[in-house]
Amino acid sequence: MLNKNHIVFFRSIVGEEDCKDDAIYLKSYAYDSTRESFEPQCVIFPKNEEQISKILCYCNENFIPVVPRGAGSGMSGGAICANGGVVLAMEKYFNQILEIDEKNLLARVQPAVINKTFQNEVEKVGLFYPPDPASQDFSTLGGNVSENAGGMRAVKYGITKDYVLALRAVLPNGAIIQTGKKTIKDVAGYNLSGLLCGSEGTLAVITEITLKLRVKPKFTQMMLGLFASIDSCMHVVYKILSSGVTPVAMEFLDTLTLKAVQKKMHRVFRDDAKAILIIQVDGEIPEIMDYQIQKIQEIFSQNECLESHIAKNTTEAQEIWAMRRNASQSISIYGKKKLNEDITVPRGNLPSLLKGIEEIGKKYGFKIACFGHAGDGNVHTNVMVENPQDNAELERGYQAVEEIFRLAIKLEGTLSGEHGIGLSKAPFMKLAFSDAEMELFRNLKKAFDPNNILNPKKMGL
Amino acid sequence: MLNKNHIVFFRSIVGEEDCKDDAIYLKSYAYDSTRESFEPQCVIFPKNEEQISKILCYCNENFIPVVPRGAGSGMSGGAICANGGVVLAMEKYFNQILEIDEKNLLARVQPAVINKTFQNEVEKVGLFYPPDPASQDFSTLGGNVSENAGGMRAVKYGITKDYVLALRAVLPNGAIIQTGKKTIKDVAGYNLSGLLCGSEGTLAVITEITLKLRVKPKFTQMMLGLFASIDSCMHVVYKILSSGVTPVAMEFLDTLTLKAVQKKMHRVFRDDAKAILIIQVDGEIPEIMDYQIQKIQEIFSQNECLESHIAKNTTEAQEIWAMRRNASQSISIYGKKKLNEDITVPRGNLPSLLKGIEEIGKKYGFKIACFGHAGDGNVHTNVMVENPQDNAELERGYQAVEEIFRLAIKLEGTLSGEHGIGLSKAPFMKLAFSDAEMELFRNLKKAFDPNNILNPKKMGL
Repeated sequence: MLNKNHIVFFRSIVGEEDCKDDAIYLKSYAYDSTRESFEPQCVIFPKNEEQISKILCYCNENFIPVVPRGAGSGMSGGAICANGGVVLAMEKYFNQILEIDEKNLLARVQPAVINKTFQNEVEKVGLFYPPDPASQDFSTLGGNVSENAGGMRAVKYGITKDYVLALRAVLPNGAIIQTGKKTIKDVAGYNLSGLLCGSEGTLAVITEITLKLRVKPKFTQMMLGLFASIDSCMHVVYKILSSGVTPVAMEFLDTLTLKAVQKKMHRVFRDDAKAILIIQVDGEIPEIMDYQIQKIQEIFSQNECLESHIAKNTTEAQEIWAMRRNASQSISIYGKKKLNEDITVPRGNLPSLLKGIEEIGKKYGFKIACFGHAGDGNVHTNVMVENPQDNAELERGYQAVEEIFRLAIKLEGTLSGEHGIGLSKAPFMKLAFSDAEMELFRNLKKAFDPNNILNPKKMGL
Repeated sequence: MLNKNHIVFFRSIVGEEDCKDDAIYLKSYAYDSTRESFEPQCVIFPKNEEQISKILCYCNENFIPVVPRGAGSGMSGGAICANGGVVLAMEKYFNQILEIDEKNLLARVQPAVINKTFQNEVEKVGLFYPPDPASQDFSTLGGNVSENAGGMRAVKYGITKDYVLALRAVLPNGAIIQTGKKTIKDVAGYNLSGLLCGSEGTLAVITEITLKLRVKPKFTQMMLGLFASIDSCMHVVYKILSSGVTPVAMEFLDTLTLKAVQKKMHRVFRDDAKAILIIQVDGEIPEIMDYQIQKIQEIFSQNECLESHIAKNTTEAQEIWAMRRNASQSISIYGKKKLNEDITVPRGNLPSLLKGIEEIGKKYGFKIACFGHAGDGNVHTNVMVENPQDNAELERGYQAVEEIFRLAIKLEGTLSGEHGIGLSKAPFMKLAFSDAEMELFRNLKKAFDPNNILNPKKMGL
């Protein structure tokens, strides 16, 4: 699709140094965290909005696919070139924090700033950026916006879209637009910032993000509860939230995951513990911390909690977090390949979801390890395939995954809570959306991108 | 545009009783709170989604404008028929609360449920729906979603879009769609719920809304501070928010408004009080209430606060609220007609905004009374026209308004914080948006509504 002349044009815009088509670059930019791999035909490092505008304009006229890319750490194939064309690699020149505005509790950043770098910088001046996807150490804020990333702290503080006040972006026709303002309230024109959040790079190339900040809470505390059943563990989640206590995070590990984590961390809990709930609370004064912890312990004790622990110091708090952070790695003892998804259901349906998943595991003959964000109904399900080289077994694994999607939708849930659709879940869009809804998505994409050059084939469009 | 045959068709769908074209109905449905008036040619009361689907389908084929309408209490002309056609009056059959789900902290409602009715119902079971536009006693939740309504409690709890989890809606082609899920996290497909919020009835007819709820806070407290200058009053706003205390509401009255309110309420404050700040805080335990109040008083005392009061009981709390609620009415002593707008700027720019507005008042020879939501930078500006029958004076008034819009935009603000654009602010869209942005809005509207039948002429489209 791409020929020498195109490369010559790109080099006239960004210079030879920043337009690469040698094999090593094409390979390096072919993958993301899904381990699917499609090579681009050219990797461009744009220096500014004007260059992006010229490149998009040209690609639009020449029907050349363009895929904007941050860290390439996405979990659904959003940043890979399913259809050849050009990668717009933002990490080289769009990695600056432009402004931290303490007066208005907001910041302006370029899209390739790493999430954790940003968190650290705002915390230096006593501020707080809550969205903390598991990939926070390497994923970019632009990627977070494009996938509408969640994280552990979503229970109390919401997800990426709740922090995006304004964006600058370049449209496929080369126009540079601004969406939203530096204000909490803005009802002039359509809510394009809200629409671009989670649009997976299919509508526009984001070049600047204005993010709302909070003041960093003075106190935080970690605790955990061990439960006799996954059911009572899930029951506790909504009991706590209904009590008026809103923890920062409420993370669970199911029986399989709990066992695996204990093994990995050489830590042994009691045998009758079938599920664990990890909770973080925060607040401005010690009394509100005590109040929340007491309330949670009260609810624990009324719901088959076998025992609970409160972190006595930072080290203990880190140990508790480490159990959750090790979950994903530790379950690899159950199989060489894990088919992991991030379905979400209304919290009240978590017990039915987990029961259903257990049955799907039995039906297809797989261990399915589940853990994740109980506080917002977002469960990371992992179908553990012992012999992925066995095609029949792998195929059965994918069937189990499809059945998990069907179950989530039946329980009024969604295909994805935070990873996005990208390529990986594209075939399942038809389970979740009607023909009319899919047609509307396509029309909406056309309104931004009539020639379908931006990140084609993603989201099942 | 509409002829007898069309009416015959509508009656075949909804029955004669629910399709009215007599003068009294056309008059009754011609206005909203802007006092602009355009008569529809027919008022239809649809009973269900299927009827709406059939009507939209027919109107789409016949290029008949359709304006969905709740209470008709909008402040920007969103619910009036600028182009003739049909009003879809939702209040008769779409006024039910369908479900209050205590387990998942959410509710499903039909669009014509009154905001305050809904608040009251959820509070009966200990829950809380924060968005509280000034029109809460009569405006509908569907109208609130369509205009993305704000309110007093936005400082701590956000605005309507922060509570919309899912929608059902009918497209101009008759298709019934669902957007979003009963989950906090959902990143499958484009964020259509976010886009429909604030779309002013131009994209789809909303038929059902799933709203997030919170647990009702146990304690609330009202207080007020009198300030020697509007500047110090505004300064205090961001000082409080930067301290880590987030009040539920922070409302201010400027010197003119404060004087008028005192007169109306027969209450006299000290002469040197030039501005008042009304603050509500809430919390789960008495200690956190004390902490917040102390912190606020500390900041008050460091910033030219002349005196402060804390409500000792419910009556006193209501008296404090009444000062704010009476603001809009009481300023009528300054002129027969008020040209009121609801611009919003980043909080840190409030002092510059109010200084600029004072200068605009002097330049054009008007008193401009300002009050409103200091906590989120949303100011209700009122250009007071003494002799509105004097065309030259009125014209000068509109010039002052336009200059206020220009000032707000210069200060990185927006034309509207909560009222929407509708017809009233349509001429000013070009001040706030580039040609490329306006074209994108139009393309986006076309993606939903290619024949431009839904609420035409609104938003400057």
